[in-house]
Amino acid sequence: MLVNCAAYRDGRKIADIDKAAISDYVSQEDCFVWVALKNPTEGEIDEMGHEFDLHPLAIEDARHGHQRPKIDEYDGMLFCVMHTLESDEDGLLRSGEVCVFAGRNFVLSIRNRSEAGFQDVRKRCESDPLMLRHGAGFVLYALIDAVVDRYLPLIDRFDDEMEYLENRLFTARATTRSNIEDLYALKRDLTKVLHVVHPLQESVKKLCGGWTPGVCAGMQDYFRDVNDHLERIVRSLERIRDMLLTATQVNLTLVALDESVITKKLASWGALFAVPTMIAGIYGMNFAQMPELHMRYGYPVALLVMLVADLILWRRFRRSGWL
Amino acid sequence: MLVNCAAYRDGRKIADIDKAAISDYVSQEDCFVWVALKNPTEGEIDEMGHEFDLHPLAIEDARHGHQRPKIDEYDGMLFCVMHTLESDEDGLLRSGEVCVFAGRNFVLSIRNRSEAGFQDVRKRCESDPLMLRHGAGFVLYALIDAVVDRYLPLIDRFDDEMEYLENRLFTARATTRSNIEDLYALKRDLTKVLHVVHPLQESVKKLCGGWTPGVCAGMQDYFRDVNDHLERIVRSLERIRDMLLTATQVNLTLVALDESVITKKLASWGALFAVPTMIAGIYGMNFAQMPELHMRYGYPVALLVMLVADLILWRRFRRSGWL
Amino acid sequence: MLVNCAAYRDGRKIADIDKAAISDYVSQEDCFVWVALKNPTEGEIDEMGHEFDLHPLAIEDARHGHQRPKIDEYDGMLFCVMHTLESDEDGLLRSGEVCVFAGRNFVLSIRNRSEAGFQDVRKRCESDPLMLRHGAGFVLYALIDAVVDRYLPLIDRFDDEMEYLENRLFTARATTRSNIEDLYALKRDLTKVLHVVHPLQESVKKLCGGWTPGVCAGMQDYFRDVNDHLERIVRSLERIRDMLLTATQVNLTLVALDESVITKKLASWGALFAVPTMIAGIYGMNFAQMPELHMRYGYPVALLVMLVADLILWRRFRRSGWL
Amino acid sequence: MLVNCAAYRDGRKIADIDKAAISDYVSQEDCFVWVALKNPTEGEIDEMGHEFDLHPLAIEDARHGHQRPKIDEYDGMLFCVMHTLESDEDGLLRSGEVCVFAGRNFVLSIRNRSEAGFQDVRKRCESDPLMLRHGAGFVLYALIDAVVDRYLPLIDRFDDEMEYLENRLFTARATTRSNIEDLYALKRDLTKVLHVVHPLQESVKKLCGGWTPGVCAGMQDYFRDVNDHLERIVRSLERIRDMLLTATQVNLTLVALDESVITKKLASWGALFAVPTMIAGIYGMNFAQMPELHMRYGYPVALLVMLVADLILWRRFRRSGWL
Amino acid sequence: MLVNCAAYRDGRKIADIDKAAISDYVSQEDCFVWVALKNPTEGEIDEMGHEFDLHPLAIEDARHGHQRPKIDEYDGMLFCVMHTLESDEDGLLRSGEVCVFAGRNFVLSIRNRSEAGFQDVRKRCESDPLMLRHGAGFVLYALIDAVVDRYLPLIDRFDDEMEYLENRLFTARATTRSNIEDLYALKRDLTKVLHVVHPLQESVKKLCGGWTPGVCAGMQDYFRDVNDHLERIVRSLERIRDMLLTATQVNLTLVALDESVITKKLASWGALFAVPTMIAGIYGMNFAQMPELHMRYGYPVALLVMLVADLILWRRFRRSGWL
Repeated sequence: MLVNCAAYRDGRKIADIDKAAISDYVSQEDCFVWVALKNPTEGEIDEMGHEFDLHPLAIEDARHGHQRPKIDEYDGMLFCVMHTLESDEDGLLRSGEVCVFAGRNFVLSIRNRSEAGFQDVRKRCESDPLMLRHGAGFVLYALIDAVVDRYLPLIDRFDDEMEYLENRLFTARATTRSNIEDLYALKRDLTKVLHVVHPLQESVKKLCGGWTPGVCAGMQDYFRDVNDHLERIVRSLERIRDMLLTATQVNLTLVALDESVITKKLASWGALFAVPTMIAGIYGMNFAQMPELHMRYGYPVALLVMLVADLILWRRFRRSGWL
Repeated sequence: MLVNCAAYRDGRKIADIDKAAISDYVSQEDCFVWVALKNPTEGEIDEMGHEFDLHPLAIEDARHGHQRPKIDEYDGMLFCVMHTLESDEDGLLRSGEVCVFAGRNFVLSIRNRSEAGFQDVRKRCESDPLMLRHGAGFVLYALIDAVVDRYLPLIDRFDDEMEYLENRLFTARATTRSNIEDLYALKRDLTKVLHVVHPLQESVKKLCGGWTPGVCAGMQDYFRDVNDHLERIVRSLERIRDMLLTATQVNLTLVALDESVITKKLASWGALFAVPTMIAGIYGMNFAQMPELHMRYGYPVALLVMLVADLILWRRFRRSGWL
Repeated sequence: MLVNCAAYRDGRKIADIDKAAISDYVSQEDCFVWVALKNPTEGEIDEMGHEFDLHPLAIEDARHGHQRPKIDEYDGMLFCVMHTLESDEDGLLRSGEVCVFAGRNFVLSIRNRSEAGFQDVRKRCESDPLMLRHGAGFVLYALIDAVVDRYLPLIDRFDDEMEYLENRLFTARATTRSNIEDLYALKRDLTKVLHVVHPLQESVKKLCGGWTPGVCAGMQDYFRDVNDHLERIVRSLERIRDMLLTATQVNLTLVALDESVITKKLASWGALFAVPTMIAGIYGMNFAQMPELHMRYGYPVALLVMLVADLILWRRFRRSGWL
Repeated sequence: MLVNCAAYRDGRKIADIDKAAISDYVSQEDCFVWVALKNPTEGEIDEMGHEFDLHPLAIEDARHGHQRPKIDEYDGMLFCVMHTLESDEDGLLRSGEVCVFAGRNFVLSIRNRSEAGFQDVRKRCESDPLMLRHGAGFVLYALIDAVVDRYLPLIDRFDDEMEYLENRLFTARATTRSNIEDLYALKRDLTKVLHVVHPLQESVKKLCGGWTPGVCAGMQDYFRDVNDHLERIVRSLERIRDMLLTATQVNLTLVALDESVITKKLASWGALFAVPTMIAGIYGMNFAQMPELHMRYGYPVALLVMLVADLILWRRFRRSGWL
Repeated sequence: MLVNCAAYRDGRKIADIDKAAISDYVSQEDCFVWVALKNPTEGEIDEMGHEFDLHPLAIEDARHGHQRPKIDEYDGMLFCVMHTLESDEDGLLRSGEVCVFAGRNFVLSIRNRSEAGFQDVRKRCESDPLMLRHGAGFVLYALIDAVVDRYLPLIDRFDDEMEYLENRLFTARATTRSNIEDLYALKRDLTKVLHVVHPLQESVKKLCGGWTPGVCAGMQDYFRDVNDHLERIVRSLERIRDMLLTATQVNLTLVALDESVITKKLASWGALFAVPTMIAGIYGMNFAQMPELHMRYGYPVALLVMLVADLILWRRFRRSGWL
């Protein structure tokens, strides 16, 4: 679906144009065209491929989707694949894909399985004609920057979840199954995000360290800034992952500790019951001559002995922390 | 076994030729020959080695098999070793080997212990004369691309198995022996695939980053595309491996948790039996003077006491989650 | 808030100047201006940005905060972001941020959420006119050096805490929940510091290995010295982290060992109660013909048997270390 | 002990020569001398050092032994240290050392604590005069290749042991002490081999990637082949090590699982005994009025109740997998 | 404290000189001076700094101590920091520091908190005038070589301790607290040594790979030899560390295994007591009609039944390895 298609000159929009008119504007030296597609059909992609003379391998990648995030150069044109991550109502992370083709005087963005559009990016770009004059390179930067900025809230969310998990681990009862499930789920989400952010960071890093394709001329400072943000995200994810690993180990230790606390309790209560039972057993024997049985206070004394023995045990268990 | 042997000129097949005629075509500047062998005898390999003037070390590698995946250059000829992975009926991964010799105007592919042939690759190549005009370099690309594409379904299979394992881990009973066995088996398969894919990725990466042997001139974009696919596979495998490690740790924690749940139950039931047994023991004593024994409702009251004590305990255990 | 604003010539302070006068001094070739802000408003930052002609991306980074530590170059100006770590009364680490802009003849430092100022740095610099003659590069070095020096006590603190934890692990009872909590807290603080120090070290390393921006000309030896200190900190943190990991594993083993000690005790005491109870049970049977019951010393002998059996068991348990 | 000492010209052996005659042949431009020592005395090494004018540091390394595997260059001479690994009768790995000095026209190999000689290498070299014409470089290659080929069976042995361990882990009882011992022993052997192979691979890699000492001129393809073999060995060792780690973790989980199975059995059988004991206790009470005691079928009904209660429990435990 | 101060010309000592005379000799082109200090005061260091014109940053590092091992170059002078490790009577590792300043024609070594001096190094150097002619570079090499050689016995000690631990782990009882303590202590010592050796190796490596300061001209082969030794130490430490990690994991498994063996014993003995107790309980019931009670051999038969039941159980437990 065609979302938007506009031509720019000198940093200012000159017209919303029709698909058919694209080639007219692209052929003008001082113009550039910015097209946005959403969930396009194969036909639409092929049409654009023809219009902008895109490399067949890049078209194929855009068509099939499920590429890893990357920035490739084909004969002076940049082809950028990014993944978007959006939380649905249940808090599950759903990933989409954004492909950007950036040539000398055109930008084509293709958005798949992603709700959030780039209208705001277009608006911000159009409001800054000085920068927009840089053309395709600046638009590419603005799009990558927008995608990267949308990763940032995930870090905060992970940090919050981690903190919540830590609190539950130490204050509440550690040995709940849900705690382990949450640890695992957080780990899975984290891995998913890292799997999306890390390759993009590596690609952007190349853009600001030596390799400067013509399209991005004069934009190095900007790509370095995006790279800084991406690196901050990657490092934060790695930090949380590291803590998650420790939390998993600590959780196991807490479970084992809990087990030994229970075993202590079990042993203590077992002893408290075993002593009276043993004494009662002894006075339940049927020997003909058991003088205690015929003493006057035999029974209450026996009960007392049971009680006193249990009290002594109870205090010892208490003092040694078993009960 | 000779599967196929054809000569091409200008991107088009000119003839299926006989082994003996190979040298005639190879000697022509504008021709190239594409030979495919399957499970060849040592004699056949030597014959081809003589026909194409292959390097003795490469011939030896092809003859012995069990090489690691690699791409080596010998005097302008490329020698590529790849491993194939095919699931047999029991779902077990069986590995085979594909060696490709790519010279200036010939390609020789040797397939060992692998069911899936490359007839479809040949057909696709022949249907695209524009590309096939690139000669041996393009055929080499097409063969590597085909082998790599056959790795992709493995990732999906691993992802499915991982998800299945996770579900069993948290919804069903974690403490089954089969769960652990499946985790281990998945890990083993994953390691096997990584062991096959990773060295190939490193070799292909060199082909698209600086080192450009003459045979592959003008094919960099294509090898970079294969490299992208291989890198995506490697990263996905590493991601799954990471989750597997976490799953193994989580599994251990769940087993320990299960153990402590059982111990709690054991302790609770033990107490529920111990209380009446103790009381019964007391009234089983043979003291001459035990007034309760002669009370009218002594027996039912004793039973009631037992019942009430157990009910109280039961409720406390229930509330604290031990039962 | 403007903390300080002074102009220097030839390594000596010439005047405390007003904000408005900054541009007058900056325009003089042989002067340089050193401005310090604390928790500035957006307006103050913009004002300075205008005064010193700072790059918009750097201004934006300074304004938003929460950047990762880094040193970037913008058109001959260096932009350095560092994080400060200060322990509050509860021993918790609170992080602040220090941004430094260092141009040809100015230094602007912005301090956010950090108590400790840089008045002492300024004093030390002013007392060494020979070095201060190097201008902005030297001031940048002095500021980084001061921030790094403030990290050093953290290492000692971590080392002390680690040693304290180790002692508790082996001398006192390992199985206390607080021990695990302290291990985890130390790990979290350590990760926090590493997350702050490591990126700074990577940035400073670049400054002393090849990349020499004009501002830092002639200061390489000094930045290498800072780098040495940073590397020592990073390595020490990694060493403590490594020991922490081992301590966590050892803690688990100690908990498991404790558990098995308790189980041994439980089993031993269980046996010591079970034997008399069984014997008493036997002589509590109501068989008509049980000769022992009518023997003269039947009862005391039975008690003796119980006692002797328990004594034998007791000694065996003692000898095998179960009790 | 001098094993062998021969002079070669043009790829063919011209004579077995005497130690004293070495310098005569070395001084001839077109000759090269190949000397093999076994467990030499210090005197023999010094003698050779004098004969071939070896670097004092290399001589010292050869004399002291216990160097790490490496290839060093001294003034145009290569000094190569390799470790051999031989299984003794008990299956234990014993390591020996092979030092090779390769100069422009001589090769000196020194073998220490290693049974397997290099007579077969010498024979194979002498049977291929075309290659042997390359002189010292080729002999060095042949010797390294021979040592590397002898590592290969270790991989197969480790793979077999690993498979055997895996089978025992899942089919037989996991919780045997011998299983853990075997895991540990395999890990130790593996580490030993990796410790020997990895540095050699790094040294050989340098020989085929850029650094080409004069001695090895024209032999790059051959050293790359050796490097390929070494890399395959290293990767296989790392793969097995990875599986070993997983097996260790899985083993722990299986032990924990076993423990919880036993605890379940313990709890179940405990309950099956506790129920009749409790009932018997109740009817062992001495209350004056216990109507059941005087019923006609009181006793058999009590027994029946015990039996039925146990049967019900038995079925429930069975169904929930506790028994 | 000044330990030694001598002047050398042409590889031979010409005189033990006075501190005041140093500058006289240093100013002579063909002389070099070698000074050794031990635990110097700040004044002595400053004096030497003045005498040899040392860089203020290097002086400061030498004065403060607690630097990480490193080799820095200041205007043609090398500044080398090494750590010494000496076992005290209790087997504890105490670390000292050795700083070496090596200029064109002087060497200044400063030893702190280290017992072992370098008199033997000086003697060995003076006995080899051919090498000593290389001047400061050779002395620097000799000092580093001496420090490195003193690390070697630590490896043997760690290897011995590791072997001892392994033996205890598998032959004796694994579950002793002292075993875990020893594992931990070994790990701590190992980490300490690695922390000292690794940075030194990285610094020395740079000296033999490309970076050749004037002072070390012609000494590359010698520094490569030191580097080889250091790398061997680092790798050995990493190998032992790897085995330690495995040993820790194996220890945990053994503890868990022990626990399950104890639980099996506990369950078995529990059953052996529970059966007679249950039977005795049944015949202790007071039912009016219990025919067995009045049979002639009722009592001995009951005892026999108890015994037989226990014997059967005993054999089953024995056969399944529970007892």
